[in-house]
Amino acid sequence: MADAADHRAVARVLRSAPSVVIGSHVDPDGDAVGSCLGLARALDRARIPCEVVLASGLSVPTTYAFLPGADRFRDPATVAAPAVFVALDSPELRRLGAAEDLARSASTIVMIDHHPDAVPEGHVNVFDSTAAATGCLVWELLAHLDVTADAEIASCLYTALLTDTGRFSYSNTTPDALRTAAAMVEAGADPSGLFVATYENRSAAAQRLIGLTLERITPVNGGLVAYSWVTAEDFASTGALPEEAENLIDHVRALRGVDVVLLAKTDGKTVKGSLRAKTDTDVGAVARRFGGGGHRAAAGFTFAGDLDSLLAEMLPHLPGGGR
Amino acid sequence: MADAADHRAVARVLRSAPSVVIGSHVDPDGDAVGSCLGLARALDRARIPCEVVLASGLSVPTTYAFLPGADRFRDPATVAAPAVFVALDSPELRRLGAAEDLARSASTIVMIDHHPDAVPEGHVNVFDSTAAATGCLVWELLAHLDVTADAEIASCLYTALLTDTGRFSYSNTTPDALRTAAAMVEAGADPSGLFVATYENRSAAAQRLIGLTLERITPVNGGLVAYSWVTAEDFASTGALPEEAENLIDHVRALRGVDVVLLAKTDGKTVKGSLRAKTDTDVGAVARRFGGGGHRAAAGFTFAGDLDSLLAEMLPHLPGGGR
Repeated sequence: MADAADHRAVARVLRSAPSVVIGSHVDPDGDAVGSCLGLARALDRARIPCEVVLASGLSVPTTYAFLPGADRFRDPATVAAPAVFVALDSPELRRLGAAEDLARSASTIVMIDHHPDAVPEGHVNVFDSTAAATGCLVWELLAHLDVTADAEIASCLYTALLTDTGRFSYSNTTPDALRTAAAMVEAGADPSGLFVATYENRSAAAQRLIGLTLERITPVNGGLVAYSWVTAEDFASTGALPEEAENLIDHVRALRGVDVVLLAKTDGKTVKGSLRAKTDTDVGAVARRFGGGGHRAAAGFTFAGDLDSLLAEMLPHLPGGGR
Repeated sequence: MADAADHRAVARVLRSAPSVVIGSHVDPDGDAVGSCLGLARALDRARIPCEVVLASGLSVPTTYAFLPGADRFRDPATVAAPAVFVALDSPELRRLGAAEDLARSASTIVMIDHHPDAVPEGHVNVFDSTAAATGCLVWELLAHLDVTADAEIASCLYTALLTDTGRFSYSNTTPDALRTAAAMVEAGADPSGLFVATYENRSAAAQRLIGLTLERITPVNGGLVAYSWVTAEDFASTGALPEEAENLIDHVRALRGVDVVLLAKTDGKTVKGSLRAKTDTDVGAVARRFGGGGHRAAAGFTFAGDLDSLLAEMLPHLPGGGR
């Protein structure tokens, strides 16, 4: 649980705000989108005027387009400087991408985040690295805003929690996380419907892309690490959309006996890499070494070079790699 | 919650029993294996002598061989008639397969089950179709046995709950189920480790089998149903074990827009079919029509005939099939 005094401070700021804008990090995931929409709906209920902006791209990723309110995201360039900007799930303001300037133009900046490396750049900050998702911190905030969760809020925040725990599979699946999930279901979130919408909504093209990824799985470092990859051409040949590769790494993870898995998306010049730890290896530390970031169990980075160069540089730093 | 009086009656029977044998249904799944081992360990802790038997096969499915106590399952033919037999997750005693005679030889039969169609054939029965898993009913029983859950018990029963809710994805993922999961984690179950052991422990052969299954997915009934299949030869060519096909249907399920999916395992003469509903279609009713059984959202059956014959007979009874 985050400090109640911090939540109260945020509630005070929001309640007296003539205008609020909510945003999250670039390449929004389920926690980013769900937390933004959950908080926006909560502010609606509390009659606090608010808007939601996207840090990158023109529309919300289709995976999360089913969430209630997903059509309310706006381009930050078209939004006026607000009294209050709430940055969600963003450990630093620069992670807000195209929305960073808008955030800095606000009279008051609020940061609500659960990343362990969050930097307190807001005037008011709610940081709690024990929270499984930023969505859980927004959930806690509701009581301080005197808002009772409805099914829409609960659905957005359950999706945030569901995705940030890897469907209750990562080490952040704490008793608190599960109890918060229970309360969200009680408030109207539909676990089965939200699971289906998030994880069982693949196009035929995405199924083919998964097939390719499964075929290419390559164990290295004495079997402690496995990697696979998809290329720009794969997207063209299967018809899969880039965002349909978001959970590809889960399929690589499923190989027996590996500590760490790496999924590389490459155009031959750069690699966008995702790392997942199945044991307590800190892949966040490895990602940071390569200019990226993330959590102990789930992290990402961008590498300037091709896949072979990346493997040559990164494998020594992973289990079984000798460093 | 099951009726506390029923739990008390079971606890009374068990506490005075000179010998207890625990068993579950044929083709044991995670709830069967987890509930048996969780209860056995609880009886150990309560100093009640007990044994655990397998209803089919010579050893526990390798998927669940990691569970604490998995090596204690015995062949029912080698076990003497007990004072008390506890049938878990078996809606009828005939589902106990090779252990049915042993159950019927007991002075007192106890049935603990969550299937909606459970038949009260025991002298004492704990039935609760609102329980997400039989493992949850065993969890409730602990208090009546004055047993505090340890990490072993919690791990077995969490695995029962995890698998019977399809990793918290089926419609039985109730607030109670999630709160019970939270309590199990508090008692020492490791959600991440148990998820990895259960779902992310695939052999390279199993990965190839999944690839085949993904390639063969075929939408029918106007896109409301999709099926895929694996043959006896596929197991030979990939090297996958039959039990490695247990969760194959989850990959078929993931296709967008389908209400029901069917996975067929066939040797050309018979089909072992699994059905899953992604909406509120009752596939249990369809399975029962074909001599099988199960829940609304997850069911199975065996069909005498080849895949084409099965499809000709079954598709009309599924969504979009016109009946």
